[in-house]
Amino acid sequence: MKSVPFLKPANLAKFIDRGIKKSGELLTPWDGSIVSGIGIVGIPLSKTSISHSGAHLAPETIRSMMHTLTTYQIGSGHDLWGESITDFGDVTMHVTDLAECQSRIKESAASLLKQCPHMTPVFLGGDHSISAGTIAAFSEAHGKVGIIQFDAHHDLRNLQDGGPSNGTPFRQLIENGFINGDQLVQIGIRDFANGKLYHDFASDNGVTVYTMDDVRKTGCITILEESVTRLRRSCDVLYVSLDMDVLDQAFAPGCPAIGPGGMNSDTLIEGMVWLAKHGNVKGLDIVEIDPTLDFRHMTSRLAAYILMQFYANYSKES
Amino acid sequence: MKSVPFLKPANLAKFIDRGIKKSGELLTPWDGSIVSGIGIVGIPLSKTSISHSGAHLAPETIRSMMHTLTTYQIGSGHDLWGESITDFGDVTMHVTDLAECQSRIKESAASLLKQCPHMTPVFLGGDHSISAGTIAAFSEAHGKVGIIQFDAHHDLRNLQDGGPSNGTPFRQLIENGFINGDQLVQIGIRDFANGKLYHDFASDNGVTVYTMDDVRKTGCITILEESVTRLRRSCDVLYVSLDMDVLDQAFAPGCPAIGPGGMNSDTLIEGMVWLAKHGNVKGLDIVEIDPTLDFRHMTSRLAAYILMQFYANYSKES
Amino acid sequence: MKSVPFLKPANLAKFIDRGIKKSGELLTPWDGSIVSGIGIVGIPLSKTSISHSGAHLAPETIRSMMHTLTTYQIGSGHDLWGESITDFGDVTMHVTDLAECQSRIKESAASLLKQCPHMTPVFLGGDHSISAGTIAAFSEAHGKVGIIQFDAHHDLRNLQDGGPSNGTPFRQLIENGFINGDQLVQIGIRDFANGKLYHDFASDNGVTVYTMDDVRKTGCITILEESVTRLRRSCDVLYVSLDMDVLDQAFAPGCPAIGPGGMNSDTLIEGMVWLAKHGNVKGLDIVEIDPTLDFRHMTSRLAAYILMQFYANYSKES
Amino acid sequence: MKSVPFLKPANLAKFIDRGIKKSGELLTPWDGSIVSGIGIVGIPLSKTSISHSGAHLAPETIRSMMHTLTTYQIGSGHDLWGESITDFGDVTMHVTDLAECQSRIKESAASLLKQCPHMTPVFLGGDHSISAGTIAAFSEAHGKVGIIQFDAHHDLRNLQDGGPSNGTPFRQLIENGFINGDQLVQIGIRDFANGKLYHDFASDNGVTVYTMDDVRKTGCITILEESVTRLRRSCDVLYVSLDMDVLDQAFAPGCPAIGPGGMNSDTLIEGMVWLAKHGNVKGLDIVEIDPTLDFRHMTSRLAAYILMQFYANYSKES
Amino acid sequence: MKSVPFLKPANLAKFIDRGIKKSGELLTPWDGSIVSGIGIVGIPLSKTSISHSGAHLAPETIRSMMHTLTTYQIGSGHDLWGESITDFGDVTMHVTDLAECQSRIKESAASLLKQCPHMTPVFLGGDHSISAGTIAAFSEAHGKVGIIQFDAHHDLRNLQDGGPSNGTPFRQLIENGFINGDQLVQIGIRDFANGKLYHDFASDNGVTVYTMDDVRKTGCITILEESVTRLRRSCDVLYVSLDMDVLDQAFAPGCPAIGPGGMNSDTLIEGMVWLAKHGNVKGLDIVEIDPTLDFRHMTSRLAAYILMQFYANYSKES
Amino acid sequence: MKSVPFLKPANLAKFIDRGIKKSGELLTPWDGSIVSGIGIVGIPLSKTSISHSGAHLAPETIRSMMHTLTTYQIGSGHDLWGESITDFGDVTMHVTDLAECQSRIKESAASLLKQCPHMTPVFLGGDHSISAGTIAAFSEAHGKVGIIQFDAHHDLRNLQDGGPSNGTPFRQLIENGFINGDQLVQIGIRDFANGKLYHDFASDNGVTVYTMDDVRKTGCITILEESVTRLRRSCDVLYVSLDMDVLDQAFAPGCPAIGPGGMNSDTLIEGMVWLAKHGNVKGLDIVEIDPTLDFRHMTSRLAAYILMQFYANYSKES
Repeated sequence: MKSVPFLKPANLAKFIDRGIKKSGELLTPWDGSIVSGIGIVGIPLSKTSISHSGAHLAPETIRSMMHTLTTYQIGSGHDLWGESITDFGDVTMHVTDLAECQSRIKESAASLLKQCPHMTPVFLGGDHSISAGTIAAFSEAHGKVGIIQFDAHHDLRNLQDGGPSNGTPFRQLIENGFINGDQLVQIGIRDFANGKLYHDFASDNGVTVYTMDDVRKTGCITILEESVTRLRRSCDVLYVSLDMDVLDQAFAPGCPAIGPGGMNSDTLIEGMVWLAKHGNVKGLDIVEIDPTLDFRHMTSRLAAYILMQFYANYSKES
Repeated sequence: MKSVPFLKPANLAKFIDRGIKKSGELLTPWDGSIVSGIGIVGIPLSKTSISHSGAHLAPETIRSMMHTLTTYQIGSGHDLWGESITDFGDVTMHVTDLAECQSRIKESAASLLKQCPHMTPVFLGGDHSISAGTIAAFSEAHGKVGIIQFDAHHDLRNLQDGGPSNGTPFRQLIENGFINGDQLVQIGIRDFANGKLYHDFASDNGVTVYTMDDVRKTGCITILEESVTRLRRSCDVLYVSLDMDVLDQAFAPGCPAIGPGGMNSDTLIEGMVWLAKHGNVKGLDIVEIDPTLDFRHMTSRLAAYILMQFYANYSKES
Repeated sequence: MKSVPFLKPANLAKFIDRGIKKSGELLTPWDGSIVSGIGIVGIPLSKTSISHSGAHLAPETIRSMMHTLTTYQIGSGHDLWGESITDFGDVTMHVTDLAECQSRIKESAASLLKQCPHMTPVFLGGDHSISAGTIAAFSEAHGKVGIIQFDAHHDLRNLQDGGPSNGTPFRQLIENGFINGDQLVQIGIRDFANGKLYHDFASDNGVTVYTMDDVRKTGCITILEESVTRLRRSCDVLYVSLDMDVLDQAFAPGCPAIGPGGMNSDTLIEGMVWLAKHGNVKGLDIVEIDPTLDFRHMTSRLAAYILMQFYANYSKES
Repeated sequence: MKSVPFLKPANLAKFIDRGIKKSGELLTPWDGSIVSGIGIVGIPLSKTSISHSGAHLAPETIRSMMHTLTTYQIGSGHDLWGESITDFGDVTMHVTDLAECQSRIKESAASLLKQCPHMTPVFLGGDHSISAGTIAAFSEAHGKVGIIQFDAHHDLRNLQDGGPSNGTPFRQLIENGFINGDQLVQIGIRDFANGKLYHDFASDNGVTVYTMDDVRKTGCITILEESVTRLRRSCDVLYVSLDMDVLDQAFAPGCPAIGPGGMNSDTLIEGMVWLAKHGNVKGLDIVEIDPTLDFRHMTSRLAAYILMQFYANYSKES
Repeated sequence: MKSVPFLKPANLAKFIDRGIKKSGELLTPWDGSIVSGIGIVGIPLSKTSISHSGAHLAPETIRSMMHTLTTYQIGSGHDLWGESITDFGDVTMHVTDLAECQSRIKESAASLLKQCPHMTPVFLGGDHSISAGTIAAFSEAHGKVGIIQFDAHHDLRNLQDGGPSNGTPFRQLIENGFINGDQLVQIGIRDFANGKLYHDFASDNGVTVYTMDDVRKTGCITILEESVTRLRRSCDVLYVSLDMDVLDQAFAPGCPAIGPGGMNSDTLIEGMVWLAKHGNVKGLDIVEIDPTLDFRHMTSRLAAYILMQFYANYSKES
Repeated sequence: MKSVPFLKPANLAKFIDRGIKKSGELLTPWDGSIVSGIGIVGIPLSKTSISHSGAHLAPETIRSMMHTLTTYQIGSGHDLWGESITDFGDVTMHVTDLAECQSRIKESAASLLKQCPHMTPVFLGGDHSISAGTIAAFSEAHGKVGIIQFDAHHDLRNLQDGGPSNGTPFRQLIENGFINGDQLVQIGIRDFANGKLYHDFASDNGVTVYTMDDVRKTGCITILEESVTRLRRSCDVLYVSLDMDVLDQAFAPGCPAIGPGGMNSDTLIEGMVWLAKHGNVKGLDIVEIDPTLDFRHMTSRLAAYILMQFYANYSKES
């Protein structure tokens, strides 16, 4: 076999520093074996969004932003260099049949959780509609699931007006019996971003709601401590659903529904690290980033950073 | 009359959720009746700006951003669904005669305040030059007016060098006798954003100046409490003039004169809510947003949010 | 009733020149009466696109670009000032049920053609999937329809792989029996933009295909003369389906599927004017403009210009 | 005096190639002497524009684009290396008094033409309003002036509705008696870009109008030959007013009023070269480029290129 | 081994249409065997550019644009579906040693041409500096090489002022004895884009120069016929060096040195197809595209299109 | 000598307010005399960057942003109006020889420090590679130098893999004996932004490392007090190297290596003011701003602001 000096396969002729490995390089395509620990699943669906959204491009973009992060968490001295993160790939979406898309999400997630029962999936949306499918599958696989939802919005809209969309996932889960309202904690709900009808639905169904005012007054860690303690009393496992629009527009300029009055990124990072360490979390999704609207992929960078902090600090038993 | 299924008038075939109403829908064109409470007036003037500015586009953009906000203030449980906010429309500007533009502003505002004496106008600029006209009209209608000005700049420049511009409104008001300097409180004045000559003018005329250093050390609410208490002792009514460039560039990327070292958005929102509740404010303007320079209309979104918080928390007697 | 000098309703305080009227002002919302002549119908659907598309925003954008054009066609001395163009509005789309969207298009178009049988609709897409519905309705209303399709692509893809999408409208029409292949003339088909399988489908079904090489060698007007003569021999009415991506990327930078090797804008304009004058065209659609990708709405401006040239030159009997 | 190796004054530490000189380097600030030949004058005014315009930035941008062009015209073998182009600088504008701006333009131009009577000025706008002042001064200095105007628009609007703006310069010149209509030839006037009232005004006043259809059918050079021959019979000198929006949007993406159906850049360049050689042109303006809207300063690049072709081909006696 | 329904490896869960294959899919990484026919080699070097350039990103971008083109050339009915195009990958560049980068290019190219002597390489730059290395290697491998250079610039600058850069490749080749000037034909050289010193160098060394004026008057195909006939008389093989900035800025907005007065894309495509069919071309490079400056990767799209037209029309013996 | 009313030299016909002077106007080109106090030196080098960088454009951009700042520091009442800041200009870079570029930096800096031994230079990069040269010269001129480095990264990479780049300056300084590790304090080092190998190198060489976690817990001022006290015990002078990417992406969107988890701008400004007052700093560099990637030059604005705060608060003996 011939070889040519300096020639490398297309797009791989990049500078390599012997002392640096990128988090993106830890991603290892699933080989079909039984995996435990954290694994990544992309769900590139955003046609289900109420407003125009390119959030289906986020799994690809978040992965590429993992290539801007190294493997070394200097604070703890923890180097992930030798580890590997299973990347299960992406769920294939149908071009025009969105109900089919949503049933594929649940079916894929269910199959995955069955085959790898000790694996902690991180689902990369996509819009928030994907959580209806992933949490339904999660509930069937793991029993009663407690949910910590970071979000500016309730996502409890009615299903009559627009069908199952990115405004309805938790309504679907409650109405279809996958969860009761008291299994759901919403953190970061914002003024002028929701309808009273849906706040009333939350109250009527026992959903716990912490507004941004609550976060500012009480502190995010205290809220998480309270919530996790309570949920763990009644639920079998915990799942975190992170809608990036919980963040203020200055910190997450690439969410479809940006706005002021939101959380800053340090608070969210600190909260996610706490959950990784103390939350006994068995599933996670990160949703609502539209890379076509972002500035220099800042929001996907932040998602990749949160993902790596979650991974590095993750403790299965807390 | 014929009808066709699914067909709606142009640009109105949008998704409607029965549980959501947008703040923008509260806007009701003035019907010529005597209105009280808060009303909106657009003043699309920016040719009076020293540097190139598209701030005349802000009234239109802020209104459209009100269509991204719902009517529900979750913190207080206050739903504005059934309310209406009178939109008086915009003052028509002359294409080439800027002095005419400025006299139209005063004339329109005066006529409005005369016809609706118990109405609290929110003037949407436009550049800061518009405040000279609105406050002059305000002073004639309501007596001695105390002014809280959020701004990075004094806006007390001389009138010889460039005529009445967005750098001169408060100089015009003092020199033309509409206010004395001690009726004016400036909050957020910034390093390297002003000339000493104009700070001296402020001092010589008894204007109260709080710099960003003061805001950081003393706290915005404390400054507001002091200022409002003092102004209410000597003035008949209060007027708030909010130049969005009081904010740091990270939070208001769409102001013509962006810069570092400014206020963060949480501090400003908190201050405006306090003023709405406790300030007995009878007039407000929001100025200096150039939508052509902004990123995803962030600055107009923030202005719309502040407007709605002000509206929702507004108490005529505090 | 009160009035205030210079104050106009929101967003209407624009400069008005007594000698200028904008084409956009000719648009008159449908009043439910029986209309003849050219009428506009927006079809804001693009979730049916194979690749991410914001083409649902085009009806709104094309209308706004009509406000950059005056009513006066100087070449002919024809001033449209006193005329009105009926704007039937937009067909409301479902958020998540795309099959429902497509059936709404056909149902709306059918109802419209039934109620206004002498009206010549101009359907503003949306992506090219909308033509399946409009032409089906057209065929049912008017009999055998001959189609002139300007396009870089066949849009004859199979329906198994992705369902009815923007790649399949003419396949759907042939397979569902609304047209035979020999009723369809495709102009502007481009190298490296199609699959041989679909060219073969075209040939097998008697579709007439003119490539860009043909256009360059033979000339667009000659091709149109041949095509119209032939189609009018066998068909009852003519319909023009204008996919803007028939244009070279330098002239239509806002199409989702831009590319080199296409038509220049002068050729297309000349062709559309010829068709308006000589084609006896009874229906038209303009599709595949994504305003979120465009530069200064150039492609929507061009669409608005073509629409006005078509309107001004339109002759029902040629 | 000390010196430091490799250190050059700020912003001048650029690569210098001994074989390349940039056209921008030919610009030589006026030293107050009596100059003949071509000289540059910037007129940074655009607040007189009907729509929002940053055209006041064009003089600075066109000059900087001259630094992207070398001095060598390869076709003719003509190297301008040793020549200098007098740059008279820019006329200072008032911030808020637009009538004052316009009178300054006339006054400056008049003073200049008086002091340098054999100089051929190239006025860089700014918007088209500047031509009212420059041509008025020109007329007073040089006698009866024939005007070749490249433009998509008549610019003959009435003065009542908006005062003297970028839509009115030729109306002002005719109404104020500086020219008769028969001294004006308009080339490139476009469909749907004008009002019939103003075309009628042109006709009534003897203005010669060539539409884009005329340009396409007759050819630009033939039109110029006819026009120059006729004008030179009755006028003392010729002046060319080049509104860059005569070009199609694909070639001049940075004009405020872009649109389709316009001239391509090769035709315009060829016409301007012909005028430089054969037109006996004594004055020129280039207007209506807004650098804030352009793509990579393409339109200013083209203006700089046309300016240099005009300079290199310029013959005072043809 | 486990499997999960709908799950595909990361970033591959795209829509697949059975009738469409993308040109990008034809790219096959080199397996080390002896290849003949056309093969691709990326040379991601642009630090050698005189002005700031991101042209090193072009190989990656052109390849990705090949994924927007199908395999079917409809004009000829030629479907490339079953073919494969060897992709040799990219030459690895040193971070800080640019002389090392340039010697790697020559060394890699030489090694490649030695191992695959019947292969026709298409080098994707990078800036134009890369041609010095590729043509030097080419000359050593194949004997006397005739060069057709499409370019706005001579690229014959001296080497003293800035070393071997993107302005010097053909100077290096002549001075280092790899070619004589009479082996070089330059087509598209533009006014105000070159220095007379370098045109003189061209003349003194027998380089044939066709300016854009020549192209407009004589026609590109005629120039190519003359040039190829003459070069084939005296040279062993032909090499085409395509600097994309030969195109007018309207057609190649992503070249670092854009400008007006250039070639349109149809002319270039037609010329490249002619050369593929009749030129007996044994090597090709495509250079000077900076994807960071482009609009929607138009210039890389065009490069990919030209590459595919060249491939599809390529005939080794003409 | 002639003069023309209102005419000013090119690009200088700007509005002038008698009460405002811009910081940029304080810049005075070096006249070759012996200067003391703060002076500016631009070092426009970024081809040495590992990833594509336009940081060589930052000196020009930071200077232009100084023209957006006035001379008046309102907090202290300190007006710099009458002062001048020596601008030594920029070091000329070689086009293709990067080792030559780096030796020029050291040579220029050394010559400058020799000729003006009491001058405190502020070097404006360029990328971080420039600090290797400036600090080496500094060390030779002033003796043992203590370094405060604000940075997200160690910049201690090995030199074998890519040569001396923007990842290696402090490694070069240590390995070449210009400093020992214990002379270096790194503040703001971030998770997932470095390799463990280089943190180990730091530890092994006695470099003091404060991570962002340390900054959040301990406070920046406390860290600076500790660091300066310790360094001043063992070192002759202090030098501050400010890599702007120490900031969070929300505050410095124009750094090549943006990311979340960084410092906010208030903390950095406060730290730099403290250092200016108390640090006895004799040299400063500001690096890693790429103006081509920034939003509205925010990052260069912030750099200019920090530079002016440093200048205004600067005390040579603390």
